[in-house]
Amino acid sequence: MSQLLPKTLVNLIDAMGSLPGVGPRTAERYASYLLRAHPAKAKNMADSLSNLHDGIKICPKTFAFIDAKDDVSPLYSDPKRDKTVVAIVAEPFDIVAVEKTGMFKGTYHVLGGLISPIDGILAEDLRLGELVTRCEEDGVKEIILATNASVEGETTALYIQNALKDIDVKITRLARGLPIGVDLEYADQITLGRALEGRQVI
Amino acid sequence: MSQLLPKTLVNLIDAMGSLPGVGPRTAERYASYLLRAHPAKAKNMADSLSNLHDGIKICPKTFAFIDAKDDVSPLYSDPKRDKTVVAIVAEPFDIVAVEKTGMFKGTYHVLGGLISPIDGILAEDLRLGELVTRCEEDGVKEIILATNASVEGETTALYIQNALKDIDVKITRLARGLPIGVDLEYADQITLGRALEGRQVI
Repeated sequence: MSQLLPKTLVNLIDAMGSLPGVGPRTAERYASYLLRAHPAKAKNMADSLSNLHDGIKICPKTFAFIDAKDDVSPLYSDPKRDKTVVAIVAEPFDIVAVEKTGMFKGTYHVLGGLISPIDGILAEDLRLGELVTRCEEDGVKEIILATNASVEGETTALYIQNALKDIDVKITRLARGLPIGVDLEYADQITLGRALEGRQVI
Repeated sequence: MSQLLPKTLVNLIDAMGSLPGVGPRTAERYASYLLRAHPAKAKNMADSLSNLHDGIKICPKTFAFIDAKDDVSPLYSDPKRDKTVVAIVAEPFDIVAVEKTGMFKGTYHVLGGLISPIDGILAEDLRLGELVTRCEEDGVKEIILATNASVEGETTALYIQNALKDIDVKITRLARGLPIGVDLEYADQITLGRALEGRQVI
């Protein structure tokens, strides 16, 4: 390849090819697009990449990603948000998903993963001590377990439930059931089973 | 979003989202991956992007992409390659596809596109004058029309054939026929029609 394409182009194709789910053909397509586009586009992307890590830190309260210039997450410091209700999420991006509903006015706590022995993630790797401290400091009344509806998510939820059993706090979790817009006949057995278990009086 | 995610992360998601075929979710996935990966990965990609345009120029003979430090394409300057046989391709990346076959020992001429009035690309936008000059300078004996097997590719091939009719050069084009590994019953009608037309004595 080195003889066929200029070195800087090969370098970019290699770099793009290291992104998740990007094979050599897609990497070539991205590089070819950037080469044809105005050079400012590549420079702009280069700047975003250079500044990425420097402009980000972890909020010491919620463990969300925050601007390096902020002290704590604006979702925590916002006086309109209820600090006594805390949603527990696995990853920082999960906060975005919950915020998009526009229906949650509490604050967040990012665990930093889900218990998954097969991936080498154990309970002690998660930010659980910090959660206990925060329950006491902020007088937390409700903890919403907003973990994935997967084996790892359920395991972690169960673990947290046990870990907090001596603390006087209400623990809830997201409802499991039929996703909106899905026909009953296409719902998988487990989802349908959970929807039955969690049926509500109307 | 600006309140939810740090600015540098939003910038990168926006930049990644401008790549062809990359939607907001994929852009988020790429950014999240780069954020978790070692910062050297993002820096390395940033460097490739910064150097991309500066390290590349267009070969004045073949119009392929070449290293900024080279004068002409190594595929042209290589004494082992036959300068009297020229493959005409639409885009620089097409050279890579032909080279991968390992079966072509001539040189290339990049047109810079295919005639496509709907996209505003006319015959005068292609590098045809340069092709005529080169035919004379290098004493070209054969021109292989290696354009796509599409309407634009065929139109361009036909146009070049007419444009070169006063020059004493053999003009050939890539064979059309059944792609290797495809069952006859799954081949489309046009391909099968071309395969019939181009049938060979064995």
